[in-house]
Amino acid sequence: MRKFEEVTTESKEIFKGKIVHLKVDTVTLPDGNTSKREIIKHPGAVAVIAQKEDGKIIFVEQYRKALEKSVVEIPAGKLEEGEDPLVTAKRELEEETGYTTDNLQLINSFYTSPGFADELVNVYFTDQLTKLEHNVAGDEDEFVELMELTLEEAEQLEKEQRIHDAKTSYALLYLKIRGLK
Amino acid sequence: MRKFEEVTTESKEIFKGKIVHLKVDTVTLPDGNTSKREIIKHPGAVAVIAQKEDGKIIFVEQYRKALEKSVVEIPAGKLEEGEDPLVTAKRELEEETGYTTDNLQLINSFYTSPGFADELVNVYFTDQLTKLEHNVAGDEDEFVELMELTLEEAEQLEKEQRIHDAKTSYALLYLKIRGLK
Repeated sequence: MRKFEEVTTESKEIFKGKIVHLKVDTVTLPDGNTSKREIIKHPGAVAVIAQKEDGKIIFVEQYRKALEKSVVEIPAGKLEEGEDPLVTAKRELEEETGYTTDNLQLINSFYTSPGFADELVNVYFTDQLTKLEHNVAGDEDEFVELMELTLEEAEQLEKEQRIHDAKTSYALLYLKIRGLK
Repeated sequence: MRKFEEVTTESKEIFKGKIVHLKVDTVTLPDGNTSKREIIKHPGAVAVIAQKEDGKIIFVEQYRKALEKSVVEIPAGKLEEGEDPLVTAKRELEEETGYTTDNLQLINSFYTSPGFADELVNVYFTDQLTKLEHNVAGDEDEFVELMELTLEEAEQLEKEQRIHDAKTSYALLYLKIRGLK
């Protein structure tokens, strides 16, 4: 048995959506008591830290319904079923930014909300970008605007909470350290 | 109208749980088309980057049912309704680690999964810790184990994916930069 493992005695599916599934598991705790766990199943995601030759970083601004505001993020997107995250990363970069690359390095992967969700984000870095001649059509219900910013400009947007999500804040620290080396 | 705003035309509540609520909103997109947004409402959370006088950082290991594994994270917890995040942060630190402080600095706040959830994590830093004489009882369905690690040890756990969540990976970069200054 793994440390502090919670053994499922019942699993109730509540909702199967286009993106998230919700289930409620009844579990036996390490002390023998019972509890409930509300769990969101998510297909996983990718994010790309993309730095141009001039040092500027590529961001996209989009409206996030869950937050009821527009935020500035590094390019990112959900995995399609069975898709290699590297393929997703290249596709999302192309669709959202009009840039492409054959040089994506996986720098980390992390769960975004381990308390209630299994969403895992694979984070890639590239500094070898080529502008596509023709735009690639993305999801028809996604409206994004490209932004190219210096790290200092991005840090200012973070102070103003226009950059306001975990993967993008992570990316800014990553780039800061990279710049110090 | 805010940039790319998606106007809600219908909101359907699917589930009201102990921790998460799930709703599906029907929205009008900027181009006039209609789409659905699956949205998780979460009370918000705090996390504490706690560094001892000897430089070691405080972590807790716990089983995360959503991931079906134990992971090592910085101390964290959900907000109670109407609670000041600073109060939550101090309480979670005391309950999960047996340390306390009156010196918590808010260093950042970020949404963990802006694509589908409104969970906002407030991240605090402290390097002024006092060991409590008596343990404080935490949530009865939470089992955590205290770990005190150097940054290098923690980075090794991250490589092994025993540290595997966004706020903790963020914390490691934050501490690395702090150490470089």
